[in-house]
Amino acid sequence: MKKDTKISNAVIKRLPRYRRYLKELQKKGVDKISSNEFSSLIGYTASQIRQDLNNFGGFGQQGYGYNVEGLYNEISAILGLDKEYKMIIVGAGNLGQAIANYTYYYKAGFVVCGIFDINPRLIGLKINDIEVMDYENIVEYVEENQINIGIICTTKDSAQEVADKLCFAGVSGLWNFAPVDLEVPDHVAIENVHLSDSLHSLAYHMNRNTTENI
Amino acid sequence: MKKDTKISNAVIKRLPRYRRYLKELQKKGVDKISSNEFSSLIGYTASQIRQDLNNFGGFGQQGYGYNVEGLYNEISAILGLDKEYKMIIVGAGNLGQAIANYTYYYKAGFVVCGIFDINPRLIGLKINDIEVMDYENIVEYVEENQINIGIICTTKDSAQEVADKLCFAGVSGLWNFAPVDLEVPDHVAIENVHLSDSLHSLAYHMNRNTTENI
Repeated sequence: MKKDTKISNAVIKRLPRYRRYLKELQKKGVDKISSNEFSSLIGYTASQIRQDLNNFGGFGQQGYGYNVEGLYNEISAILGLDKEYKMIIVGAGNLGQAIANYTYYYKAGFVVCGIFDINPRLIGLKINDIEVMDYENIVEYVEENQINIGIICTTKDSAQEVADKLCFAGVSGLWNFAPVDLEVPDHVAIENVHLSDSLHSLAYHMNRNTTENI
Repeated sequence: MKKDTKISNAVIKRLPRYRRYLKELQKKGVDKISSNEFSSLIGYTASQIRQDLNNFGGFGQQGYGYNVEGLYNEISAILGLDKEYKMIIVGAGNLGQAIANYTYYYKAGFVVCGIFDINPRLIGLKINDIEVMDYENIVEYVEENQINIGIICTTKDSAQEVADKLCFAGVSGLWNFAPVDLEVPDHVAIENVHLSDSLHSLAYHMNRNTTENI
């Protein structure tokens, strides 16, 4: 665990949520929103929103509130969503296939270029026109196609080896669905989706009868 | 957003992670671990670990550390993992099918009893022996089978209506994969898995060259 910037991960985690709500407002034709209205919509205090956005220079105007399209574009740029990312999936099992399908219908600039597996029965199959390729050739593929993100949908036991290989080949980000925490070099970003952790949190709240819609 | 207990959501979110590491230690035959060793393994400070566990009464012993199996069992019980949960999935598309497959191989006490969809071409199909049923009959099914958890794998636009119906039918928890925040009654717990938010956080860190393995 390592922090190179002064902006906390909690703030970063809230940015996509701000962006989602701003997109909905845009769809509804809303041009501007006061910080109080935005607060009651998104469920954070107005002061929290101001604090979060001040990390990046503000964007609100006293007595006016926020310009919806402007703030949406600013947050998109902060998140790096004004670029295109080339991704590969490792592991063509159920989860890998679901992620391939999920990202296929995804409108933003995240493109799955290939899927890799070691299972000969899966190699050669096509999932939404994306071929399942032999894991043997992954380093060459990442280098030649300048892949940015590796999506790890393997078992827990293979995940670290796959991460090592992807980092060696030159990806700058890993999206990890394997239920294990991975070691990566400092220059590689990693985001974990631990589904079982999420299910276990749900079980806790069900037994405590507490609702946390965060 | 609402808090009924004094234990923060951040602490709850860390419990499944503690449990995962304790399970790995058990597999390796480790009986006890000092708080410093546990700290360097899991990446939280020893003081953070003590603070987190003190919310539930401690469990460590001065000069001994933690009993691995004991702490694993305690955390499992706190999370409510000593019970069985009956779940249904709404939405038999790619994501719903992936979740059905994922949970099928899941060893713990979370059982998918049925999958529901409105699409006549999907109704009647079987996914791992679990039949896709008509969404029309969902309330009756939840009541009759005492389903605890509804897993929402629908589109963003249908998700709130599905949530309302599931809450009315009597589930006590929702695991939401639709990219939208849902309103639920206070007695129903909800846990969101916003995959696109996670991907956007990853993009941010890639552009900032920061690594956060949390």
